[in-house]
Formats: sequence, structure tokens, C-alpha cells
Amino acid sequence: MKRIAIIGIGAGDPEHVTIQAINALNRVDVFFLLEKGDEKSQLIELRKEVCRRYIAKDRVYRFADATSPDWARDTPDYLATVGDLNRDKQAVFERLFANELKDGECGAFLVWGDPSLYDSTIRIVEAIAQAGAQDIEFEVIAGISSIQALAARCKTTLNSIGGAVAITTGRRLSAGWPEGFENAAVMLDARDAYKSLAGRDVDIHWGAYVGMKEEIVISGKLADVADEIARVRAQARAQHGWIMDSYLLRLNDREKN
Amino acid sequence: MKRIAIIGIGAGDPEHVTIQAINALNRVDVFFLLEKGDEKSQLIELRKEVCRRYIAKDRVYRFADATSPDWARDTPDYLATVGDLNRDKQAVFERLFANELKDGECGAFLVWGDPSLYDSTIRIVEAIAQAGAQDIEFEVIAGISSIQALAARCKTTLNSIGGAVAITTGRRLSAGWPEGFENAAVMLDARDAYKSLAGRDVDIHWGAYVGMKEEIVISGKLADVADEIARVRAQARAQHGWIMDSYLLRLNDREKN
Repeated sequence: MKRIAIIGIGAGDPEHVTIQAINALNRVDVFFLLEKGDEKSQLIELRKEVCRRYIAKDRVYRFADATSPDWARDTPDYLATVGDLNRDKQAVFERLFANELKDGECGAFLVWGDPSLYDSTIRIVEAIAQAGAQDIEFEVIAGISSIQALAARCKTTLNSIGGAVAITTGRRLSAGWPEGFENAAVMLDARDAYKSLAGRDVDIHWGAYVGMKEEIVISGKLADVADEIARVRAQARAQHGWIMDSYLLRLNDREKN
Repeated sequence: MKRIAIIGIGAGDPEHVTIQAINALNRVDVFFLLEKGDEKSQLIELRKEVCRRYIAKDRVYRFADATSPDWARDTPDYLATVGDLNRDKQAVFERLFANELKDGECGAFLVWGDPSLYDSTIRIVEAIAQAGAQDIEFEVIAGISSIQALAARCKTTLNSIGGAVAITTGRRLSAGWPEGFENAAVMLDARDAYKSLAGRDVDIHWGAYVGMKEEIVISGKLADVADEIARVRAQARAQHGWIMDSYLLRLNDREKN
């Protein structure tokens, strides 16, 4: 039996890590690090920093690197493309479990944010466990997601009183505001989807690298700040080579649908 | 100037607490504890346990108790009732800040789950800060919400690939499935609202007291487990005098709307 831990480590600030995650980190023998190209090596460094900071000095652990399969983001068939990507990732994970993890050991993935939100690690590890070719069991540790970190930073709630919150993607938001909702939290927006709401009375809190030294937060009426967000966002992405951002939208009273 | 910290402490397991929350706990002079009646005294004890466990032995801090105003849950006008409740709570908070907190000190509320989700503390403290009668500044620390703890325990994701998630209330779910969503996470359900979906092909993960010794989790096809959940839920509420529960719903393919 091999054990796999899928550990949420929060949205970029190493202080987002929970005691539960720290206890899990201290049971791990091998940390799997998936490189996505040079631009994200800072994210690998941050994972190593979490290990250095929270793992007891007398624990022995190692890192196993692999290259994460790449994908075409601007594909017309999103679901099929993600399906292909996850199949490729599954093959990479299977090789890691077979070659880098000994029987009785615990391997771990350190996931940004919360593994339950817009992350494929649970799905892929579960597929491997169910396929049964490798004898593995796995556990999941929740983490602070970027939208929670952003809400806390902006001292705001995700929901209005008694209201519902749509957690959605840029792709979905581009197709229209989620009907019946006053609040939306948007992740995975590669296309400035908030611009599609330009004519509506919406407040926005946008944040990138929240809790990190690079943190940028812009809040205001969408109509007033949309252009600024688009500009700052493009600039930050160009400067750092990558961006971790999300935003919260609140539809104001007279626009509620 | 008085400082207020609104600290998310997770969903019941003291190990949900983040390092950020622990650092905040160690800056607090006064913890405000709002009693809601005998049945919830266990929740007060859990807050005190978090303080005992994570605050440095040489730090001096104190507790200030108050009785939380009560409200009628089965009201026809939910928004007005919550508005009244929050106004009453605001008066309680104002008295606590005025009488229990000295200038230059830090007072704190320990909030179950994440203060950004279905909790009024941010709204009330912000109203007091904006009113300006008391010179206060406040900060918010995110916490693991019950739906994240439940998803992690069930090793499942909140969203389907590329899909959106509705975070909603039992009250709202009773009015119908959120259109266009495959997944919903439901909090504040005092009425077994999942029963309204009985005719549909839905998977449910229901959990109460997740991460606590009283933990109960039931997963399955809604049609198969709805009655069991209703029975176990009523039993647990009767036994403990209170319940902290939430559930995740996934609409299966042929039922997607």
C-alpha cells in the first residue's frame, strides 16, 4: 500500500497553511513537484518554502520532479481538451507513484488554494486508485482558496444576507451573469470576462498574488475600474510571467435579476 | 484607536486553524464570546480550546461574554428579520467595544468556518466602524468553511470540470435547483431542503460536525439516502441540542439543465 496526501496550502501566503496541513506535511516521504515551464518556477520555490518552514528539522523527505503536460487554453472544445490533459497527467502521476514512491511510503501534492476548487489532483488520483493497478489510498486536506483570501483582504463577505454565491469561471461568466445570484466569485479568467458586464451596476474586488509580496488589489464600481484592472493585470502577468488572480462581483440592488 | 480581529477558525476541528489565525490569536487582548443559549455552550468551549491550544503560555488575554440576541427562524420576511437581528447584535457589539476593550487593545471574534460565508460579523463590525462613534479598525482572517471540510473528507471536488458551483441556503434551494449549475453546496438548511429534489438524479454528500468527534457523513444517490439523512439529522440535533451541517449536491449528466 502506498499513501497519497493531497494537501491544500492556501493562496500564496505561507501563513494560510493549517495545522492539519502541517501535520500532514510531517508524514510525507516524497513531495511531487510538477513543473509547468520556467515562468512558474516561483510557485515550486514557494512549495519548497512551505516544506522548509513547517516540517520538523529531524524529518527526512525528498522531492520528485516531473514535467506537467501542457494544454491549449484557447481550445473550442474545453471539456475534451481538459479530459486529454488529465489523461496525460494521470500517466505522469502513475509513473511518479510507480517509480518514486516505495511501498508503505506517503507521497504528497501541495495544491494552491483548496484542492476541491478548480484543481484536477483529486480527480486524477481517484482515477488511479479506482483503476486498481497500483495499491494506493489517499487523503485530502482543505486549504484557503484565493477567493477567501481576497474576501478577507477586502473585509467583505462572499454572500449578501441570505443570498447565494456563484463560484464560476471566466469562461462561464463571458456567457452571462448567473441568473438569480447577487454575488459571484470568478476564478480561471484568462480573458477579462468581467468586461462583459461593463453596462451593469456591479461592484468588483479584484486581487492578484493575494497574501504574497507581489499582492495587488483593486476594488470599486466595475465601470470605474475595469480598464485599470485589465491594464494592471496584463502588466503583472508580463512582469512575473504568471498570475494567480480572482475576483468577487456584487450586483447592486436595482440590477438584481 | 481600538483594533478588532475577525478570525475564521475552521469548521470544528481545531486543526483547521491556520498559522495566520494563530498569529492573530496571539495579538488579541479580549475574546468576545456570544452565548446563544445553553445548547451551544459546547461551541464556546471549542473556542476556548482553540485559545488554550494556540496562544503562547506567557500571553495574557481575557474573555468577555455577552448574550447574543435571538431571532425567529421561521419568519415570513427573512431579510427584515435578519436586519432586525443584526441591528440588535450591533448594539451588543458596540457595548462590548465600549465597555470591555481599552484604547490600543485588540478584541476578537472567533468565527466558525470562514467569516466571508453566511456570517454577519464582518457586516456588523463594518457598520460600527463606518458609523464612527467608536474609533476602531478591523481585520479579517479567512478560515476553512464547513463545505470545504466536507469536500475534503469525502475526497471530492466542489465543481465539475470547468463547471460552476452554487453556494446557497436551504431556503433558496427549496425554491428550486439553481439553473445552469451542476453542483451546489448548501448551508443553513433548517428544513431538509434536499427533499425538494427527491425526483431528480442527484448525488449528495451530507456531513455534520465534520472534523469533530461527533462527525457523521452520509454519501450516495439522493433518492437512496434522503430519508436516512433526515432521520440521522433529526436524531443528532436532538442528541446534541445543536447541529453544524452542510451538504454538496451534484446533478448527474442526463439531468443537467
